[in-house]
Amino acid sequence: MSRTRRSSLPAARPAATPPGSARHATGTVRAAGGSTRAVTRTLSEDPLGGTVRRTVLPSGLRVLTEAIPAMRSVSFGIWVAVGSRDETGSQAGAAHFLEHLLFKGTHKRGALEISSAIEAVGGETNAFTTKEYTCYYARVLDEDLPLAIDVMCDLVADSVLEPADVETERGVILEEIAMHDDEPGDEVHDLFARAVYGDHPLGRLISGTADTVTPMTRRQIQSFYRRRYVAPQIVIAAAGNLDHATVVRLVRQAMRDSPLDTDPATPAPYRPANPAVRTRAASTVVEPKETEQAHVVLGCPGIDRVDERRFALGVLNNVLGGGMSSRLFQEIRERRGLAYSVYSYASQYADSGLFGVYAGCAPGRVNEVLELTRAELARTAAHGITEDELARGKGMSKGSFVLGLEDTGSRMSRLAKGELLYGDLMPVDELLHRVDAVTLDDVNTLAADLLARPMSLAVVGPFANSDFPT
Amino acid sequence: MSRTRRSSLPAARPAATPPGSARHATGTVRAAGGSTRAVTRTLSEDPLGGTVRRTVLPSGLRVLTEAIPAMRSVSFGIWVAVGSRDETGSQAGAAHFLEHLLFKGTHKRGALEISSAIEAVGGETNAFTTKEYTCYYARVLDEDLPLAIDVMCDLVADSVLEPADVETERGVILEEIAMHDDEPGDEVHDLFARAVYGDHPLGRLISGTADTVTPMTRRQIQSFYRRRYVAPQIVIAAAGNLDHATVVRLVRQAMRDSPLDTDPATPAPYRPANPAVRTRAASTVVEPKETEQAHVVLGCPGIDRVDERRFALGVLNNVLGGGMSSRLFQEIRERRGLAYSVYSYASQYADSGLFGVYAGCAPGRVNEVLELTRAELARTAAHGITEDELARGKGMSKGSFVLGLEDTGSRMSRLAKGELLYGDLMPVDELLHRVDAVTLDDVNTLAADLLARPMSLAVVGPFANSDFPT
Repeated sequence: MSRTRRSSLPAARPAATPPGSARHATGTVRAAGGSTRAVTRTLSEDPLGGTVRRTVLPSGLRVLTEAIPAMRSVSFGIWVAVGSRDETGSQAGAAHFLEHLLFKGTHKRGALEISSAIEAVGGETNAFTTKEYTCYYARVLDEDLPLAIDVMCDLVADSVLEPADVETERGVILEEIAMHDDEPGDEVHDLFARAVYGDHPLGRLISGTADTVTPMTRRQIQSFYRRRYVAPQIVIAAAGNLDHATVVRLVRQAMRDSPLDTDPATPAPYRPANPAVRTRAASTVVEPKETEQAHVVLGCPGIDRVDERRFALGVLNNVLGGGMSSRLFQEIRERRGLAYSVYSYASQYADSGLFGVYAGCAPGRVNEVLELTRAELARTAAHGITEDELARGKGMSKGSFVLGLEDTGSRMSRLAKGELLYGDLMPVDELLHRVDAVTLDDVNTLAADLLARPMSLAVVGPFANSDFPT
Repeated sequence: MSRTRRSSLPAARPAATPPGSARHATGTVRAAGGSTRAVTRTLSEDPLGGTVRRTVLPSGLRVLTEAIPAMRSVSFGIWVAVGSRDETGSQAGAAHFLEHLLFKGTHKRGALEISSAIEAVGGETNAFTTKEYTCYYARVLDEDLPLAIDVMCDLVADSVLEPADVETERGVILEEIAMHDDEPGDEVHDLFARAVYGDHPLGRLISGTADTVTPMTRRQIQSFYRRRYVAPQIVIAAAGNLDHATVVRLVRQAMRDSPLDTDPATPAPYRPANPAVRTRAASTVVEPKETEQAHVVLGCPGIDRVDERRFALGVLNNVLGGGMSSRLFQEIRERRGLAYSVYSYASQYADSGLFGVYAGCAPGRVNEVLELTRAELARTAAHGITEDELARGKGMSKGSFVLGLEDTGSRMSRLAKGELLYGDLMPVDELLHRVDAVTLDDVNTLAADLLARPMSLAVVGPFANSDFPT
């Protein structure tokens, strides 16, 4: 357990931004969906992995699998193309509230039956909600996959949302929000999103707030469930020691006569950008709090998920603040000892993105840390990075991607995100090739654009708003 | 990144206590060490894994590897049998301070060369300090293993500890301590150890405190390094696509003429219990802090690492608070919605252990949560668990253990901990057999003993000491 150890590096330090799955021009042939028969294609037979196959069920629900016979386990996930940005202001937190409620019971199983079914065989199950999608997953030994499929499909397709459970779970979520407020190093990232996106849904908390969760009714959540959890918006992915046809058969069986067993339809294209994103430049948000450290994020709007520059951004991010050898780590931690945790990161959404630098430091040194960070961003914008740094940044992107392919969970996520967010799966070797193809000029042009933008600032710590005049 | 998502279950919820590697009576033949030749044995050829081999170098340094040809990566770790409990009071934090400093530079490499060597090939490296041991590790693609061995052996064997680096790193560590103080859900576990162990070294913070770290001198740390980092106290472990003989050769080459290239010696037996552990019953420690939640741990001294009852304790812990189907999760979260995060856990040391229940709840509900927890512990002590729960608890222990064998990092840790903490590696099938052999009577006898003990309490939250009279 993390509490029994102290690391040289913060546990939460994100790895180099993995380039992830991505749309590519020379996509494989896609099954159209919308027919009354399931349509299956083999997408790739990866030299580093297993065979990827994709089936579109008549309902528009997609099933992707990667068969990796050397593994003992299978990761199985149900991904729904709905997240907190799909909520109206008064619904804020509905997607996340719903995600909690689906574990509370279906027409076939109570909450205890759901969790004990998976746990009795030593498996694990959980779920998470992001701004753009929601995922329910289980990881089990291969022989227990039929059980996991049956339980997970049942809870996503056919949850009851008992009124009493809504009330109980409301208490749990309010505690989750309170817990988050006790973690200033996390909270500051939410503040930063608010600084950049303001009132746009991307600027809101995924969990909602006590003000939106407290009055939320079962009817609101139920309506969100029925409107949003529809077959064409759902991708099921599995990776590990499995057989594709068996997975498809078990999914169809588990969904039969459920609310997701619907008329023929075509898979939905991913997310029209609605409402259009507006970002704000150089705004400052301060959350005064009696913490030991000042927690700051300095950053700006980044690039969206399909932007071709995302590979260059991965490299730039690695060089600036992606590891122990990065510029910011070297300058702020190694040379000056001002912070334990300092890193940069890039988030991408369908139509927007964020680039930020986090640091946790003594409140009395916060201006020094911010000045050093601004100076490093300006220097990189003006002079770019070196050939050595380019090589190292590419090595980090490629290595962390390949190392990340060794567990069934990340492989399962790769399939689902490719399908859900890009409508396609980029083969491993093409992705590595795209990283290799990044030039010094690509990175330096991006740096000159991105890092010279007016920066927004989020701060949690023992300060007043007036301590950080805009 | 975790901040972009909200989960149904807390990310920090520990998995069921894995029984881990363990001493067993019918141990394989051990190489004696202390000869002038390296002595190698094959320990096991595991049906679930690869071939485990063990070599004792003349210096007493042990090298264990597990060859798993299906993997693309290798995890490589250097484990030193020294932790915070080996410090005197005025040295508190020395082991952890040293762990930081080893990354700052050797006679061959500066800090940037160390980190960039591994990161340029996409690998990751880090280290952590516990109460009883310290680990330095890297995970790289198989072709980069020679590089990782060279860098990691160099930094552990031959670090310079430059005076200027000691000063810089002191600042980093003081920020790490401050960061920890901003995480009440972690801090409360340290408080609980203090409640049970008082002034014994097991009750102290691994990081030390600002009071001990601020005046610590380079000479103190250097002396700790040279006395404690000796070949017979070190275990090197690697798992992944590797060849044992090559790993041994590369380790010997990297260590040649270093301070760890010493005269023939025998590996040290693990840790005499010194000073003898004293525990305190029913003490209460409160840290008043203006947090949103009350963070509490209620618990008692548990059992030590070689106690035969540890398999029964694993099962009991799973049933009480090890997952979503556990009694405490069901009672406190599922039925009453009082907490987002609630779980039990067991920690084991050479000669002692802890058993505790954590919950984070609204400050106004803390007495209700504590009463429910005490009632559940008393009920389990009095009436034991059911046959169904026994089966589920065993399934969790076995499943999480087997699922945990799928990455090279946990396999590497398993080898090292077996050797370092038990002097042996329990084969996978024997470990599964030991879990299977746990009877209802074993669990209930343990529950009647353990859960009826006077409980200590640690609290972080908006309270005064007088709010929790002992």
